[in-house]
Amino acid sequence: MAGATELTENQKAYLQIKTVTAVFDRARNLELARIGLNMPQSEILYCLKVAKGPMTPMKLARMTHKQPHTVSALVHRMERQGLVSTKKDMKRKNWVRVSLTKKGEEALKRWSTTTEVPDALSVLSERERESLHTITKKLHNRGLELLRKFQPDPYGEPLFW
Amino acid sequence: MAGATELTENQKAYLQIKTVTAVFDRARNLELARIGLNMPQSEILYCLKVAKGPMTPMKLARMTHKQPHTVSALVHRMERQGLVSTKKDMKRKNWVRVSLTKKGEEALKRWSTTTEVPDALSVLSERERESLHTITKKLHNRGLELLRKFQPDPYGEPLFW
Repeated sequence: MAGATELTENQKAYLQIKTVTAVFDRARNLELARIGLNMPQSEILYCLKVAKGPMTPMKLARMTHKQPHTVSALVHRMERQGLVSTKKDMKRKNWVRVSLTKKGEEALKRWSTTTEVPDALSVLSERERESLHTITKKLHNRGLELLRKFQPDPYGEPLFW
Repeated sequence: MAGATELTENQKAYLQIKTVTAVFDRARNLELARIGLNMPQSEILYCLKVAKGPMTPMKLARMTHKQPHTVSALVHRMERQGLVSTKKDMKRKNWVRVSLTKKGEEALKRWSTTTEVPDALSVLSERERESLHTITKKLHNRGLELLRKFQPDPYGEPLFW
């Protein structure tokens, strides 16, 4: 079949975005490794910090758009590292509440002042930053529509939408 | 310490981009699951298809900005699934050459016609798409600079830059 891997303009643009984010993810993880963190961990710490009300692994999975089993494993590793603590919820026995520890708070402070990779956005002009904001918003909305469509288990994550 | 987790504009924009890509990654993986693939696999298949000359796990790691051990494990899983084949290089015994199998070629064809998530980019206006292209290019260059800076083992990946 001729042209089977000839990509559409959308696919090409999509791959370009994927490449940029792969470069940034790698750079950010290397930057965070210097302060003993990685991106998934810092994301969990940040969610716990800004969350209103008690957090469970399921809620963290919804906030981070990750799979529940991925987040559960991550939370357990972080608990062993002393960054978070978990305890069984008294009212709902199969619920686990996740909290920041003092060590987690400290790690989050280091994270919030380690910004060389995020500061890469400064290469953009004011106009480009505004444009990026608009583009991000549009794509986010469309992405959520697609996620609703493809989500195989809406019962599993009803609160998110 | 007051304000320890007050984020700069760059960090906020960075998190927004991360959120959008998390949504898209999840949607794309769900879309690809319908044709028996996931994003990391299809990326490897595509690299093998467009590569000039023999491919090794190390070269694939450079192309995809992933860690060599991640790509090796991925290639081995894909070999078990029949999507790629590997054989020892005759001249350099510690090199493994990775090739597409017929099943891999077929999977790639299905991949290239499964485009609902990449087509989400159609929500952007022509001007926004151009802007996104410029922004992506600028950020890619800056990202590579950062990666060079943070790369802990330049000897391990000299060819990439």
